[in-house]
Amino acid sequence: MSRSSHATLRSEPVAPVTLVSGPLQVRAETLSITTNKTLQLLDLTDEVMARVLAMGVREGTATLVSQHTTCSVFINESQAALREDMEQFLQHIVDPATPWLHNNPEHSDCDRMNAGAHLRALMLSHCLTMQVSGGELVLGQWQRVLVAELDGPRTRTLRLQVMGVE
Amino acid sequence: MSRSSHATLRSEPVAPVTLVSGPLQVRAETLSITTNKTLQLLDLTDEVMARVLAMGVREGTATLVSQHTTCSVFINESQAALREDMEQFLQHIVDPATPWLHNNPEHSDCDRMNAGAHLRALMLSHCLTMQVSGGELVLGQWQRVLVAELDGPRTRTLRLQVMGVE
Amino acid sequence: MSRSSHATLRSEPVAPVTLVSGPLQVRAETLSITTNKTLQLLDLTDEVMARVLAMGVREGTATLVSQHTTCSVFINESQAALREDMEQFLQHIVDPATPWLHNNPEHSDCDRMNAGAHLRALMLSHCLTMQVSGGELVLGQWQRVLVAELDGPRTRTLRLQVMGVE
Repeated sequence: MSRSSHATLRSEPVAPVTLVSGPLQVRAETLSITTNKTLQLLDLTDEVMARVLAMGVREGTATLVSQHTTCSVFINESQAALREDMEQFLQHIVDPATPWLHNNPEHSDCDRMNAGAHLRALMLSHCLTMQVSGGELVLGQWQRVLVAELDGPRTRTLRLQVMGVE
Repeated sequence: MSRSSHATLRSEPVAPVTLVSGPLQVRAETLSITTNKTLQLLDLTDEVMARVLAMGVREGTATLVSQHTTCSVFINESQAALREDMEQFLQHIVDPATPWLHNNPEHSDCDRMNAGAHLRALMLSHCLTMQVSGGELVLGQWQRVLVAELDGPRTRTLRLQVMGVE
Repeated sequence: MSRSSHATLRSEPVAPVTLVSGPLQVRAETLSITTNKTLQLLDLTDEVMARVLAMGVREGTATLVSQHTTCSVFINESQAALREDMEQFLQHIVDPATPWLHNNPEHSDCDRMNAGAHLRALMLSHCLTMQVSGGELVLGQWQRVLVAELDGPRTRTLRLQVMGVE
């Protein structure tokens, strides 16, 4: 397992934009991912960067949304060791000894016993907003697009939308 | 109290958008809510969905922002049991024994003793960004728009803005 | 040190927007900040408000993104006492006794020993989305734009982008 973090490389440095104006263009695509652990972080940066580039919006924003309540998206560094640390941190932020009502059949018809997954999602977000400039995501060298599976293994649907000017 | 979660039903499934282009349209409305507990989660999904549909933007994004520092917005599942679990989790994430400076008249002129509310808000967000497609919010079946009152009871103002093409 | 919180004053109250339509305008600028502590909250509200006003978009959204994995942006109240409370809360949310793999040379080539900073960033966000209306940020009286340095002292780059109609 590599000890290094994945770097994010734009083809051009991010520059200021004095003014770009034109018709609004909106494009959107669905991404499907398959997870294989209960709690797992996946790095989607390369796929999201390639799709944004292909979608052809020059200046604007991209949103990546999870369509699930126990699957979140965020930016952080991506290194095998750090992803394990983040998984462990998310695991321990919820007290396993608390008798959560969502896991109690008297109060809940959900049989997944996944209160912990919902509480972890509360600390994260279903939506990641990123700037697009020069047709590429505005991300620093160590910023990576990560998905947190919080109640896997599952197949998950994310939706990437780009809005801006060509 | 129902043991079931509220489902979110779009009239049409979410589809990819190859390209929609046109003038940018922006509309915005204010929502007022009244809470009746110190820490309380409210489900605003039906109202937000109806307003977005009526605002007539076909492809774009919607932002729902709280205009308060102790009132947050997010997406999660909405079930009575789980909402109680989330309230309990938020309650306990802040240590009540810590002598927070914001609650100390020597250091603070705020008489609400609400440091805990501000610290809970730090874990959440004042802004919820959602995609809009086919004129409807892009939400999965169990995704609901929730507001967290962290220092109630109060009347709170939220602002819903939709940006996109018709 | 003042016991009071900084107030945010718009020149005009926020109003509903029935419909504004026109070409999309996008502008973006870079902000550089220098921090002087390991964990430090800075109030950027006045600078961000002034820049948004000068950028001349009347109705739309502004995004402020950090280009770093250990530097986050969010909205909260800004008072010296409360900022110290938030710093203390963020400090203690990560258990210092856990042997994080990211701090272990066997597993990581990062020599900053900053696993804690990455875990704190996981609870916050790299992107802050705000509404713009009447050419000004839509912020309530006590809402302030805060930056969290989580692994300073450093010089940090943020990017402010405004999208909307003139």
